[in-house]
Amino acid sequence: MIRTVAVVGTGMIGTSVGLALSRHGVRVHLVDSDPAAARVAAALGAGTTQAPTAPVDLAVLAVPPTRVAEVLVQQQRRGLAHGYTDVASVKSATALAVLRSGADSTGFVGGHPMAGSERSGPLAARADLFEGRSWVLTPAEDTSRTVLNHTLAVVALCGAVPVVMEPEAHDETVALVSHLPHLVSALLAGRLRDAPHEVLRLAGQGVRDVTRVAGGDPDLWADILGSNAAAVTDALGALAKDLLTALDALEGVGDAGASPAAREESRAVVRELLARGREGRRILHDRRDAGAPSHSSTVWVELTGRTGELGRLLLETAELGLAEDALRLLPDEGPGGLTARITAPYAEAEALRRRLSETGWLVRLPEGRPPDGHLPDDALPRVAVSPAV
Amino acid sequence: MIRTVAVVGTGMIGTSVGLALSRHGVRVHLVDSDPAAARVAAALGAGTTQAPTAPVDLAVLAVPPTRVAEVLVQQQRRGLAHGYTDVASVKSATALAVLRSGADSTGFVGGHPMAGSERSGPLAARADLFEGRSWVLTPAEDTSRTVLNHTLAVVALCGAVPVVMEPEAHDETVALVSHLPHLVSALLAGRLRDAPHEVLRLAGQGVRDVTRVAGGDPDLWADILGSNAAAVTDALGALAKDLLTALDALEGVGDAGASPAAREESRAVVRELLARGREGRRILHDRRDAGAPSHSSTVWVELTGRTGELGRLLLETAELGLAEDALRLLPDEGPGGLTARITAPYAEAEALRRRLSETGWLVRLPEGRPPDGHLPDDALPRVAVSPAV
Repeated sequence: MIRTVAVVGTGMIGTSVGLALSRHGVRVHLVDSDPAAARVAAALGAGTTQAPTAPVDLAVLAVPPTRVAEVLVQQQRRGLAHGYTDVASVKSATALAVLRSGADSTGFVGGHPMAGSERSGPLAARADLFEGRSWVLTPAEDTSRTVLNHTLAVVALCGAVPVVMEPEAHDETVALVSHLPHLVSALLAGRLRDAPHEVLRLAGQGVRDVTRVAGGDPDLWADILGSNAAAVTDALGALAKDLLTALDALEGVGDAGASPAAREESRAVVRELLARGREGRRILHDRRDAGAPSHSSTVWVELTGRTGELGRLLLETAELGLAEDALRLLPDEGPGGLTARITAPYAEAEALRRRLSETGWLVRLPEGRPPDGHLPDDALPRVAVSPAV
Repeated sequence: MIRTVAVVGTGMIGTSVGLALSRHGVRVHLVDSDPAAARVAAALGAGTTQAPTAPVDLAVLAVPPTRVAEVLVQQQRRGLAHGYTDVASVKSATALAVLRSGADSTGFVGGHPMAGSERSGPLAARADLFEGRSWVLTPAEDTSRTVLNHTLAVVALCGAVPVVMEPEAHDETVALVSHLPHLVSALLAGRLRDAPHEVLRLAGQGVRDVTRVAGGDPDLWADILGSNAAAVTDALGALAKDLLTALDALEGVGDAGASPAAREESRAVVRELLARGREGRRILHDRRDAGAPSHSSTVWVELTGRTGELGRLLLETAELGLAEDALRLLPDEGPGGLTARITAPYAEAEALRRRLSETGWLVRLPEGRPPDGHLPDDALPRVAVSPAV
């Protein structure tokens, strides 16, 4: 059970921790080298700016990676807390710095919540920032059991999922899924800085999405990338190789002097790079549902060919929050010439079937199949739904 | 006045055009080499699959860039329409292909709606896809006035803003704001394809945003990039240079053998690249409001220091849909130690002031200023709002 926490550094992450813990009745003390930032966090409801009268159960050091060890030593000397954790997005360098700093490393467990935003400062904080997100912990062999458990309690109260990793594995991973995307996003956005006014008029949602994270604080991110330089360099080097391959292939496609076969070959290289990207994106997207049960169910709907009926069906699926690609169409021999196949997690498919029944579509079960009941996964019969409208 | 339109190619873009025009009472004929795709578009309400009995006013060729000229010749021979436009995302190559194809180029005006999605096919279509978006037109000197005006009518009915450009200027622009981001997004996503399962567990919203557009159809995008190879190569070459600079600098930061001064210098290079990216993103983000009136107004709110009052204020601004960074905090001498400054478009600031009055905050005007009335821009007094709660 954790009752008192100190948050040192009331930026977006620290304040969000304070908000989440305060909601669960933990007494949170807010500390920041900038008293105004701590006042803002307090005004948001993240805790109190009063100093604790006795050591708190756990202090969360929400300071930039390069400052973790120094702040740890400082606060351990002051006796702020019985145990300490941090939220820095690199773990090997901070672990090494902690060892070298002379801090009591048994009272510290490294942490990194996998949540954030391109915004910074307490005003960007949200109590639900960590909800459902992974929160990496990197305990060492001699880490105090009590400190680890207090940190696990904080992670749980923030609604996050703890993931125990080695610092090195963490750093390689975030280099790939966070640091590299951030850097590339910034480089792309940087190319737009001097673009003529007119150019930006044509910018659509795609380029805005790709460059969103480039809004991060350059000082903080230079610290992050610098603290994880080896892993980021590896990932960036591999990307640079792909980029030069693409450049070479595109030059080949555009080479008017080349043979059609050579140009087609260059085009195939570009296409292959794009196909790999689509595959990577698909895997990434699929992982979003990683925590959800894999039970899914399929609903079949025969269309009658009435104008707008498919639009109505899409609305029904959209209102249930189904994935954009949940609905597929197959040609059939019926009057509408089309059958819709909707694949969704079990509960949503059930809800859709119920909803379609209620709004006048006729629900039928395939012949020879048992009634649907609550059979999970593959055992679930395909449910045929025919419109009664 | 435009009464009849043919859409050739009922993918996402073509079907969206059909949906938008059908809503405005235009009779839309849907044509696709895949009859099932046309049937899907018709079932969505985008028009009819029946062939027109007489030439339509305008045909919108919504086919991949490499097929525009060939389809134009084909449909002109059949007499499908009095005039033609396309929606391909490259314009020089298609213009050249049209000239070489022997088509009647006076009956054709190149077009490119700046809207899209990583999804494809008619099911991804939306009637409001083009709402408020730029739609580039590239008329030549000999383009028929009637065809240009019919195309402008289609653009207007789709809710888009026409932008007349030279084909070359268009191609350079989209290379920068669309093709390069797409390619880089795909290369990044491609690096994740073979990442261990565990790696993806740590992926957050940032990398998902950066890789979203990588979901596009590889064949279509290989066509697009290949048709705009020269401009994309230029943009990609410049990015590659920045990327290698970043790689070099990060290696410098991570070089344990280098002097602290040299490492700090390398870090400064990384920081500068990130700062340029943030600036580019800011410019891009600002352009989003380009079409909106520049009238803005500032609302001042003094905080009293009560727990949660700032949270309530943020909720009020969020519910009005104000920009994330509309609210800034300044230290002051009052009991709460903070004043909130909210800058918003005139109408939203007015609404906020009204709303705050209604929910118990005391609205005051600064001394010696006229009542606010409807003064636009700089003439508008700053309105002081003090909480009465």
